[in-house]
Amino acid sequence: MASEKTIRIHSPATVANMVCGFDILGFAVNEPYDEMRIRCKDEPGIVIVNEDDYHLPTQPEKNVAGAALLALMDELESPVGFELFIRKQIKPGSGVGSSAASAAGAVVAANRLLQDRFSKEDLVRFAMNGEKLASGVKHADNIAPCIYGGVTLIRSIFPLDIIGITAPPLYVTIVHPQIEVRTSDARGILKQQVLLKDAIRQWGNIAGLVAGLLQGDYQLIGRSLEDVLIEPVRSILIPGFDKVKKLSKEAGALGGGISGSGPSIFMLSENETTARAVEKQMKEVYESLSLAYHTYVTTINQSGVTFVEE
Amino acid sequence: MASEKTIRIHSPATVANMVCGFDILGFAVNEPYDEMRIRCKDEPGIVIVNEDDYHLPTQPEKNVAGAALLALMDELESPVGFELFIRKQIKPGSGVGSSAASAAGAVVAANRLLQDRFSKEDLVRFAMNGEKLASGVKHADNIAPCIYGGVTLIRSIFPLDIIGITAPPLYVTIVHPQIEVRTSDARGILKQQVLLKDAIRQWGNIAGLVAGLLQGDYQLIGRSLEDVLIEPVRSILIPGFDKVKKLSKEAGALGGGISGSGPSIFMLSENETTARAVEKQMKEVYESLSLAYHTYVTTINQSGVTFVEE
Repeated sequence: MASEKTIRIHSPATVANMVCGFDILGFAVNEPYDEMRIRCKDEPGIVIVNEDDYHLPTQPEKNVAGAALLALMDELESPVGFELFIRKQIKPGSGVGSSAASAAGAVVAANRLLQDRFSKEDLVRFAMNGEKLASGVKHADNIAPCIYGGVTLIRSIFPLDIIGITAPPLYVTIVHPQIEVRTSDARGILKQQVLLKDAIRQWGNIAGLVAGLLQGDYQLIGRSLEDVLIEPVRSILIPGFDKVKKLSKEAGALGGGISGSGPSIFMLSENETTARAVEKQMKEVYESLSLAYHTYVTTINQSGVTFVEE
Repeated sequence: MASEKTIRIHSPATVANMVCGFDILGFAVNEPYDEMRIRCKDEPGIVIVNEDDYHLPTQPEKNVAGAALLALMDELESPVGFELFIRKQIKPGSGVGSSAASAAGAVVAANRLLQDRFSKEDLVRFAMNGEKLASGVKHADNIAPCIYGGVTLIRSIFPLDIIGITAPPLYVTIVHPQIEVRTSDARGILKQQVLLKDAIRQWGNIAGLVAGLLQGDYQLIGRSLEDVLIEPVRSILIPGFDKVKKLSKEAGALGGGISGSGPSIFMLSENETTARAVEKQMKEVYESLSLAYHTYVTTINQSGVTFVEE
């Protein structure tokens, strides 16, 4: 039934929430990305081989890629075996969808071995099991852009409703200060109740952001990148956040904020020159705080997980 | 300074909230509309003449059109006088922007007498004083579509940020059950706090609705016309609401809900045949409840307040 060959893929990092779009918006970026290979093996089951130094668990049910693959295998009539080689370049815990890249990459690659029998929506469903394992919650705002590419809207999780949002060209500057913010902690500090008036302001911004993206209106995108609910609570976990945001905007960024649940911070710009100027500001902030960090200047990835020739 | 002639306008009814877009979305319809005439008079001040049977106050500071005009006159260097004739066809308290039509119509017409010296955004700002008088709150989700036409997003009130949302052709069926729901009461019963998870579902729908409108995706529009926060509370004030909604959808409507704060209910359809079938269902519901009602089958008004030749 399954192919004999090895499938090799690149699975991109993703930025969830997109400031005001908590739990519903996300986009994929061209850098960084994980490299993965998958092939069928004779005996049923999953073997995971780490080809990096992150020492992630290799037991399938404790590995996000494994958990995603297990969900996929649950919907096959006959047992199959997969051997998965993972070379992560997206640091776990960085807030740019490291677990999503593993989970999404694994199921997209496995699906190719199975002659693409599952739809992209199925694959999102499977991969969300990886997110459940990583953060305790089945969320799709990293998984969906990782699989679909571009900016994606997850209108609803149950039932799953994913909508591609066409965006104008955007440059993305990301800084990852090397501190740990656990997704579960970042979720834990959120208030379960919010003021209606704050929610109204938030959904005005979400509507503005979606309209700005679809209409290619950079200024509207910039004005809408405001989060009155989540950022004020979560940003206190990220040293230098306010300064990075202020200096990035002064350097010309349209706006930005926490990537996912942090600690990475992302900024959107209209052109590469501005994106590089933003990177410079970010570097200076973390140099002055004597905090290790890593930066990326990249663009929106339009294709999601991509297949690479052997 | 001001023109000698009489300006005659039609000021359209509007549907605020658009189900999930509480306080941020609204659209204008081609029917019903108010007829108004305005001309300059020699003595400074405002004279309001009612040409209908609604017996609305004619003291400018107690009349929504007067309150809007007073705000406009506050920003003129020298005193002017206006004589305003109002023939309302949008019943006050119906929930389709009767007060907005008066306030917006008055300032648009007066502005024409003043050689259009104020921008549309200024006019929204002035007209919101009428809404303040009518409901106690300066909201723009009726005013903005009444002045701009089409579907409008009010991303923010302070500062005012109005965005036109291009929509595909849509038919609108409206039923106005002749009961009274005061806007202030309808606001009063809302909870000031909402669950974050409900807010997330709401803004997923708002994002879906904006995307559906801009992408001309009728099915997405339909799926997104869901309100988990306001409708469950407010709809209990409107007899027959659940039945109207259920039967309208069965008749083919994409979806719909409370118009503004009610009691009118609106439904969107892709074509006129469906919109008429929806009207039939609405009529049957209110016939069976022995409640007086009025229905409209109309389309989205793309131009807002329009000038009519003498």
